[in-house]
Amino acid sequence: MKNNKLVMIPGPTPTVRSITDQMGRETVAFGDPAFVRDFKELVINLKTLLKADGECFVVAGSGTLAMEMAVSNVTKRGDNILIVSNGFFGDRFIDICERKGLNVDLLQAAWGEVISPEEIESKLKEKHYAAITVTHVDTSTGAGAPIQEIGKIMRNYPDTIYIVDGVAATAGEREYVDDYGIDILFTGSQKAFGVAPGLLILWAGKKALERRKSIGTIPEYYVDFEKWIPIMNDPAKYFATPAVNMIWALKESVRLINEEGAEARYDRHTKVSEAINKSLEAIGFKLLANEKDRCSTLSVVLYPEGINDLEFRTKLAEEGVMAAGALAAYAGKAFRVGHMGNIDDHTVYSTIAAIERTLIKLGYEYEKGIGLKTLLENI
Amino acid sequence: MKNNKLVMIPGPTPTVRSITDQMGRETVAFGDPAFVRDFKELVINLKTLLKADGECFVVAGSGTLAMEMAVSNVTKRGDNILIVSNGFFGDRFIDICERKGLNVDLLQAAWGEVISPEEIESKLKEKHYAAITVTHVDTSTGAGAPIQEIGKIMRNYPDTIYIVDGVAATAGEREYVDDYGIDILFTGSQKAFGVAPGLLILWAGKKALERRKSIGTIPEYYVDFEKWIPIMNDPAKYFATPAVNMIWALKESVRLINEEGAEARYDRHTKVSEAINKSLEAIGFKLLANEKDRCSTLSVVLYPEGINDLEFRTKLAEEGVMAAGALAAYAGKAFRVGHMGNIDDHTVYSTIAAIERTLIKLGYEYEKGIGLKTLLENI
Amino acid sequence: MKNNKLVMIPGPTPTVRSITDQMGRETVAFGDPAFVRDFKELVINLKTLLKADGECFVVAGSGTLAMEMAVSNVTKRGDNILIVSNGFFGDRFIDICERKGLNVDLLQAAWGEVISPEEIESKLKEKHYAAITVTHVDTSTGAGAPIQEIGKIMRNYPDTIYIVDGVAATAGEREYVDDYGIDILFTGSQKAFGVAPGLLILWAGKKALERRKSIGTIPEYYVDFEKWIPIMNDPAKYFATPAVNMIWALKESVRLINEEGAEARYDRHTKVSEAINKSLEAIGFKLLANEKDRCSTLSVVLYPEGINDLEFRTKLAEEGVMAAGALAAYAGKAFRVGHMGNIDDHTVYSTIAAIERTLIKLGYEYEKGIGLKTLLENI
Amino acid sequence: MKNNKLVMIPGPTPTVRSITDQMGRETVAFGDPAFVRDFKELVINLKTLLKADGECFVVAGSGTLAMEMAVSNVTKRGDNILIVSNGFFGDRFIDICERKGLNVDLLQAAWGEVISPEEIESKLKEKHYAAITVTHVDTSTGAGAPIQEIGKIMRNYPDTIYIVDGVAATAGEREYVDDYGIDILFTGSQKAFGVAPGLLILWAGKKALERRKSIGTIPEYYVDFEKWIPIMNDPAKYFATPAVNMIWALKESVRLINEEGAEARYDRHTKVSEAINKSLEAIGFKLLANEKDRCSTLSVVLYPEGINDLEFRTKLAEEGVMAAGALAAYAGKAFRVGHMGNIDDHTVYSTIAAIERTLIKLGYEYEKGIGLKTLLENI
Repeated sequence: MKNNKLVMIPGPTPTVRSITDQMGRETVAFGDPAFVRDFKELVINLKTLLKADGECFVVAGSGTLAMEMAVSNVTKRGDNILIVSNGFFGDRFIDICERKGLNVDLLQAAWGEVISPEEIESKLKEKHYAAITVTHVDTSTGAGAPIQEIGKIMRNYPDTIYIVDGVAATAGEREYVDDYGIDILFTGSQKAFGVAPGLLILWAGKKALERRKSIGTIPEYYVDFEKWIPIMNDPAKYFATPAVNMIWALKESVRLINEEGAEARYDRHTKVSEAINKSLEAIGFKLLANEKDRCSTLSVVLYPEGINDLEFRTKLAEEGVMAAGALAAYAGKAFRVGHMGNIDDHTVYSTIAAIERTLIKLGYEYEKGIGLKTLLENI
Repeated sequence: MKNNKLVMIPGPTPTVRSITDQMGRETVAFGDPAFVRDFKELVINLKTLLKADGECFVVAGSGTLAMEMAVSNVTKRGDNILIVSNGFFGDRFIDICERKGLNVDLLQAAWGEVISPEEIESKLKEKHYAAITVTHVDTSTGAGAPIQEIGKIMRNYPDTIYIVDGVAATAGEREYVDDYGIDILFTGSQKAFGVAPGLLILWAGKKALERRKSIGTIPEYYVDFEKWIPIMNDPAKYFATPAVNMIWALKESVRLINEEGAEARYDRHTKVSEAINKSLEAIGFKLLANEKDRCSTLSVVLYPEGINDLEFRTKLAEEGVMAAGALAAYAGKAFRVGHMGNIDDHTVYSTIAAIERTLIKLGYEYEKGIGLKTLLENI
Repeated sequence: MKNNKLVMIPGPTPTVRSITDQMGRETVAFGDPAFVRDFKELVINLKTLLKADGECFVVAGSGTLAMEMAVSNVTKRGDNILIVSNGFFGDRFIDICERKGLNVDLLQAAWGEVISPEEIESKLKEKHYAAITVTHVDTSTGAGAPIQEIGKIMRNYPDTIYIVDGVAATAGEREYVDDYGIDILFTGSQKAFGVAPGLLILWAGKKALERRKSIGTIPEYYVDFEKWIPIMNDPAKYFATPAVNMIWALKESVRLINEEGAEARYDRHTKVSEAINKSLEAIGFKLLANEKDRCSTLSVVLYPEGINDLEFRTKLAEEGVMAAGALAAYAGKAFRVGHMGNIDDHTVYSTIAAIERTLIKLGYEYEKGIGLKTLLENI
Repeated sequence: MKNNKLVMIPGPTPTVRSITDQMGRETVAFGDPAFVRDFKELVINLKTLLKADGECFVVAGSGTLAMEMAVSNVTKRGDNILIVSNGFFGDRFIDICERKGLNVDLLQAAWGEVISPEEIESKLKEKHYAAITVTHVDTSTGAGAPIQEIGKIMRNYPDTIYIVDGVAATAGEREYVDDYGIDILFTGSQKAFGVAPGLLILWAGKKALERRKSIGTIPEYYVDFEKWIPIMNDPAKYFATPAVNMIWALKESVRLINEEGAEARYDRHTKVSEAINKSLEAIGFKLLANEKDRCSTLSVVLYPEGINDLEFRTKLAEEGVMAAGALAAYAGKAFRVGHMGNIDDHTVYSTIAAIERTLIKLGYEYEKGIGLKTLLENI
């Protein structure tokens, strides 16, 4: 009996049956009144979930397209932008912005650390920025930025749009758009929402929407807020064909989140991630992210001496857990394990058990069972 | 017993069970070797299907994004572009191109007609164009452009990229990329491929790929060929998370197409569309598209005197057929019915039967059963 | 594109997606509180639907096992039983009863006709019968017995258990257990309930239950009412493992029936069967069943001269309709087409259209389209 | 996030997606050539799997009906039968046999023990028995009978039919019909085959089939071998409607078994059951079954002092594991946990982890983590 492969990478995350059942429905016309109602409800529910009063866009694409969408709608060629990067995905904004003719200033943290609000503020004081980007959780490091604290600072810079990349965070880490002073937040469907990849979700507050209006025509067409606003307010209208089945799946995801309770969900992510991290440390792994900066949606785990990345992850896959390799300088030196979205206790225990079995098979010396025991003491 | 609602709009089209089953699978890691193999096979199969030797891109998004992707990769600010528009979706290129700083020349057909190859050639002779766009089938009119004939002309203009919008055509209308001299062809998953909406598919020939290289950095990030080429050749690599379930579904669609045989499929579309059109005319409808220009994927059907659009389509939906309203000047004066993709004889007869029942219930006077009889004589 | 094969045999009948989705769920423990609740609700709903005040049994098996269950629980070796047979399935009771040591008297109708209430009454006057069996609709002939009228007579024979075989009738033909004076009624899941085969459903009234008690131990174990009564009243109890997924599917079927309305459903069956029969006659077929005795759940259709059964049904299957062959003396001379359960207008039109296409392909001479036209005039 | 409830009762067992997908297919006509082929292959594969040369019956029903089927086909009123009972389900044969007029002799083991081959032989020497029944694994105790050894003895009693109840064993415990000298073996679909409940599977060897022939007409109809033999050899024939979807699911189950390898599967069951048993003992539980008699498909687990059955199992269900209560005298004193069928390592670890969490929450004092650690040392 082959082990079922748990999708413990930092996205896609495990898809539960009630969500895949929505994806597997017979597609209907996008103008079908029942679908229009579903889509409308989804948009409202997404705004309620994140306490976001402006607009919410649900568009076929990916988190990467959402990054571009965020930047494109609030900046124009020649604008200054401050990129706060805590890793690989923070850096990705550089290319996006530069090719659009923005002047990029960069605050770059060592991997595993995050730029502090103070560092950001001192930059903001130096120069006017049309926008600032902050990656809430950089999937390459597992460190989480203090987006609420940064949001407090941003209130002093009302002409700077505060863009938060929530790709590896939203629906797993606590985020409330208006309360935190976020102007644009976005994510992809396959992360903590637990849907298959294929949708981006982007929330834009009043300030971001005003900025969009003020800059006139933008070169980008598909991601232009102006094209989508009428649709998001009345999905009976047409701009581009909505991804019907993915939208149903996302709607089911939001229903599950509300069933669990958003706050309970965030607390669960905290508890589970702490338990997993302690468990991994008890086994003998070290984590890339500083203890104080660790996010609750994934862990980037440094190998001890003598463990080969490919061998470990191949064996781990046989044991039934897919983990991701690390990126850039950490490739080969660490693996990444997601623990966000719709995962239950079984998934958590199965993951640590598979890691322990893998280490035992690889001949790694440690106190057998300590990982699982640590989970028991912490969940 | 409510009638099952057949999705007879010009996209999404009816989704068969083997395709929805793929969409409804448990999502796996995008790096899972089995998925990587599936994705790779899909890309190869798509190139074989369309006899396209260059690159094929399968990207989360929609046909609209594919339009932008096509233009963005082969033009730069200040270039001339010739837009050959036979309707609403042809016109859509205008906005896309203008906001990117292109100089747009427009050949615009009366709705239901198409611009002739001769008209195009005389334009091409006047001025150098970086690119030309032709909509194969404009979903707003049901007229089909002679893309093969245009392709022959284009061979005389090797510095002009020939972009064909295949959204309402590809996999239903005959299209062979290299044979026809097409440089870029694209469509969406929800049209004649019969998958849910959410993917764009774009084929780029050698000339288009060289053009991309020659223009250096482009402002667009997500749709940049350069970002995707490595992934499409080796899906084990990462750029943006592929839409796993949609990709499986598209793979199943291509398998179904090959099972039917591509040529047999195109012939079926021709035969079915002719039968449906004759049937609709026998009932008393008129078609918007000129007889000689009619496509085989959808029909735009003008109401006879006395039929109210909303009433007709609402009643038709109760009878189990979703049809689309007409666009722009024809809104309220016509409806649009798709007959592309994975539809069998049952679907065709059910559609005409539902139209007849609707007309009877609305008190329309005609020879009852003539529509169905006409089908019998033509299928 | 191969035509989807419609299951137009007289059972199994077409299974709609909401029902197959229930069959395809992950199985749960039969003691799971949620399943216990579902099962309990199903039993109550089945009793309400048929207005049956006694017990309802839902047991893994088939209609054939239900026949045996009915007989076993109300007769003992040496008892007299009157079998009213209008065809193949009526006759089946003979073997069942004889092997159990019952004295069988038989009223046998010519195929296509039914035994009249008067004939039954004159038999009942002659001798005491422990039980009488009447097949409501004999699937071999398409004739329907006047079970309500027979029920009126049965009130004068209170010591005779009135067993109605509803296999090809229940949930399609009007049947109300207590109102009609029926003591035992049964069917299978795959007929007018539109579920996959695998379940028998049997309703037993007070009189039948008292009879069961009065005859003491019976040789049969699995079908013994006494074993199941505690379970049907409290599905948390255990006798034999219930067919979890099939029970969910049947529950969904009953939900669909109630959504449609039982009376509306029976009326629909009447209307559809009349339209189909007229349509078949217009084409040139004759029906086996007398006009006054025709049931509304299936038609047994005699071939005109020159049509070969195997050729016709093979071709018809290619056109997308599965029909059944006729039985016994009518094998090769007729085919049987079901029109019960969850079928919508599309299914009806598709069926007649496929029959017409088949006849045309076989070179049969008739007025093309007359079948479909007749449907239009009658639905 | 509620924990997914693992179905760790001794049947139904966890149903994997490829099996539920078969159950959830659109039902086809039982005469559909593709289905006839599937059914035929299934029957052949089932015979190959168990090395059974006679007939294999796949019939809608349950294991209980299979018990009756076994007895009914090889005995007649007045025959002697020896019932070897090692628990609740062994005893069940008493009622079945007595009501059919058989003279029952009973060998009854203390719960948790099994009757030895020697005890059986001494009984067989005393008197002629038409048949003997042995329950391979009694689901009430978790003890497994030495059916191969008993089979050796049975070769000396060629006029006694050797019936083995494999309900909680077949496809999990090693069983080879002809090699072991078994005349009749049966099980239900929902046990080690991992399909939903609703099918019985019964293998009958040559001797059993000859016995059936020799006893002439039997009172039972639905379970009469003679009715089914023609169908099992040619499923295009009709007796009672086969449970189409369940048959597909069983076919997929056999495919999975062959993919794993039957021998590898039996070895896995041994290894997993030993690991689970050691783990439970390490935690402080005792097992009902004697160590030497333990089966490999389930465990009956005695509570230590102070654990309340209902409280334990309710809490355990919240933790995501459904276990069964114990039967008869052990009700309240033990719980039963299945570990047969299509379960992978994740399921095993999740089960023990949930048991540990439950005990911790109930305040039970023991060495936390010892259960999981014991698994790691034994799998």
